[in-house]
Amino acid sequence: MDLLLRDVRPMGAAPADILIRGGRIAEIGPGLDAPGVTVEEGAGAIAVPGLVEAHTHLDKTVMGMGWYENAVGTALRDMIDNERAARHRLGLDPHRQSMRHALALIGAGTTHIRSHVDIDTDHCLAMLRGVLATREALAGQVEIEIVAFPQSGLMIRPGTLELLDVALSEGADLVGGLDPCGIDRDPKGHLDAIFALADRHGKGIDIHLHEPGELGAFSVELMLERIRALDMKGKVAISHAFCLGMPDWPRAGALIAALAEQDVAILTTGAPSREVPQVTRIQAAGLRMGAGCDGVRDTWNPWNRPDMLDRARIVALRNNLRADADLERVLALCSTGGAAVMGRADHRLAPGCPADLTLLTGSTLAEAVAEAAPRPLTIKAGRVTARHGLALTEAP
Amino acid sequence: MDLLLRDVRPMGAAPADILIRGGRIAEIGPGLDAPGVTVEEGAGAIAVPGLVEAHTHLDKTVMGMGWYENAVGTALRDMIDNERAARHRLGLDPHRQSMRHALALIGAGTTHIRSHVDIDTDHCLAMLRGVLATREALAGQVEIEIVAFPQSGLMIRPGTLELLDVALSEGADLVGGLDPCGIDRDPKGHLDAIFALADRHGKGIDIHLHEPGELGAFSVELMLERIRALDMKGKVAISHAFCLGMPDWPRAGALIAALAEQDVAILTTGAPSREVPQVTRIQAAGLRMGAGCDGVRDTWNPWNRPDMLDRARIVALRNNLRADADLERVLALCSTGGAAVMGRADHRLAPGCPADLTLLTGSTLAEAVAEAAPRPLTIKAGRVTARHGLALTEAP
Ligand SMILES: [Zn+2]
Ligand SMILES: [Zn+2]
Repeated sequence: MDLLLRDVRPMGAAPADILIRGGRIAEIGPGLDAPGVTVEEGAGAIAVPGLVEAHTHLDKTVMGMGWYENAVGTALRDMIDNERAARHRLGLDPHRQSMRHALALIGAGTTHIRSHVDIDTDHCLAMLRGVLATREALAGQVEIEIVAFPQSGLMIRPGTLELLDVALSEGADLVGGLDPCGIDRDPKGHLDAIFALADRHGKGIDIHLHEPGELGAFSVELMLERIRALDMKGKVAISHAFCLGMPDWPRAGALIAALAEQDVAILTTGAPSREVPQVTRIQAAGLRMGAGCDGVRDTWNPWNRPDMLDRARIVALRNNLRADADLERVLALCSTGGAAVMGRADHRLAPGCPADLTLLTGSTLAEAVAEAAPRPLTIKAGRVTARHGLALTEAP
Repeated sequence: MDLLLRDVRPMGAAPADILIRGGRIAEIGPGLDAPGVTVEEGAGAIAVPGLVEAHTHLDKTVMGMGWYENAVGTALRDMIDNERAARHRLGLDPHRQSMRHALALIGAGTTHIRSHVDIDTDHCLAMLRGVLATREALAGQVEIEIVAFPQSGLMIRPGTLELLDVALSEGADLVGGLDPCGIDRDPKGHLDAIFALADRHGKGIDIHLHEPGELGAFSVELMLERIRALDMKGKVAISHAFCLGMPDWPRAGALIAALAEQDVAILTTGAPSREVPQVTRIQAAGLRMGAGCDGVRDTWNPWNRPDMLDRARIVALRNNLRADADLERVLALCSTGGAAVMGRADHRLAPGCPADLTLLTGSTLAEAVAEAAPRPLTIKAGRVTARHGLALTEAP
């Protein structure tokens, strides 16, 4: 895809044009000319690398299905069981719903998504197939990485491991996992199983770890033992990792240092009601770190929105980040940070890099992040995918 | 003011009309008729009591003055000193700015505001006079309660106490205070001074208390001693009260019980980066509790917005409130809860009560809170003050 994006301010700097050739950035500079190439006017907007939703669940949203009345408690186990039943009751179509969710993200400037997808003995591979169809339908508009996720438990639900195995063969990119102690009640069994599966398929791991304090720290230690044993440095991510926000500062510091040694990535939602890994601390320790909105308008939670600038605000509020430099840092977390976790080290505005970018409105980068106005334009591999906050492809 | 508000759903219930006579609700029911009375069509929207911004700072916002570049740290003392200097540098006009802020709140469905206003030996009474002019200009559109607030410290800045005294004579409604230990470094001196001042003027107190854990608990104990000694039951509020969210559950419980005995009110912003008093716990103990957005787009923080439904979301996220019943409860916190703190026990949709209400969009009350769409209509004492999220009075 060739495109000349005229009059934008890369990262809030002086106005320039961005010339895109074959879906990649060819040149950035003032007054570029490219006869015959389609021109888009940036009108002075700020250009940044496309936003990256690095932790979500495309198979969970009830967007567009009417208001979901939530009457369940906030215990993890209750919310899990409630959702499995509700999917049947509501007739949730995972392809249609993941299309709605992904297109909303594209509208909000997103170019990359990592989505966990539930695999359980009740719905089997239905959620995966729906999200795979969405990935196919939106190819060229957004990159979707899929984590085969045993949301209902692995050791406590025999048959799930075999389904994860099939899911990986059918197109899932990573092996998921979930609270080896808190939910699965068998940390050794759970971690042995998912690490062996990942090793056999040559895939990475992204594990949900809500376990707080010492319980989570124990699970992190068990993960580190397996990463070292199987030589999986750089192939594992921990989502949430609440235990890294524990009050015992030196204990958390030692864990973080050990994770850095194995290049384990951290994904955060900045959960306001929990202890969370501090952005400043994790980044200072050299770990790759991204952010995500988690599930959006689902049976779990009414508050999350499909917008990484909204998430930047929540992560910043949770981490007490206020200064302009901090706002720029939290924006980076929501774009280049998540991209690094997804293995896209070249997700930046520079010649040779993929032309995946979005425009933001504001006099400075910090103002653009704080205002979070609708994104004027989103471009994926040189192709315009959204204008004025809305994806060009209509949602089903 | 007489008005017939047709086809609304009071608190999300069945459609009804609301007849307003002389600024008060006269009748609620289906198919009301009132010849000669102006009619407003509610078009099926949900009607709720007007939103109440119970903790903010109308004298601080830089809204409409261009982006404020924040390069200061997050230490309270630094932010205080930075702001005092920045006001001069920026030429902040407290009347113009408080008009902008208050009108944005009116646009978002607000009918009552409690605002702290800085009183210090540098700006003297300039901030107060600006906000008093705004209160006068917006009389009939929103009720503004003013707290004379020694933001820069009291004991550490001689002359401030005398200024607070004048502020109360000039129209401030309550005496403010600030971290008697953490900022003012003299808890006995600070609390003796503000309690004596309130006692002499026959006014209430609303004190900012950021002090965490045992330090804050100590300050709370000192306040309770003075409330008992001066017989000020029901006349004191504590803003933030982070110490009530301390991990020591029984210790916090004993403090909360003692506060309940003296009918001390709690105001929260649901600060995501701090321990906060839990909504469920404070309400269960029978304390009056309200919420506020705190300062909006000021030298402190870029994230807060002048919208109590936005604040409801943040308080809910911080408190892990997700179920529909919880969303209704957090909405109440942001309307009737704050009104109770401001002494408006009759802030509800019932005959005889003031016709202070706003319309919300949604199929249910919970959906309306979660969606937080622009408020279709706001009414104060029977007069329409805002439509489609915008105040009818234009901001300067
Ligand atoms: Zn998740
Ligand atoms: Zn305040």
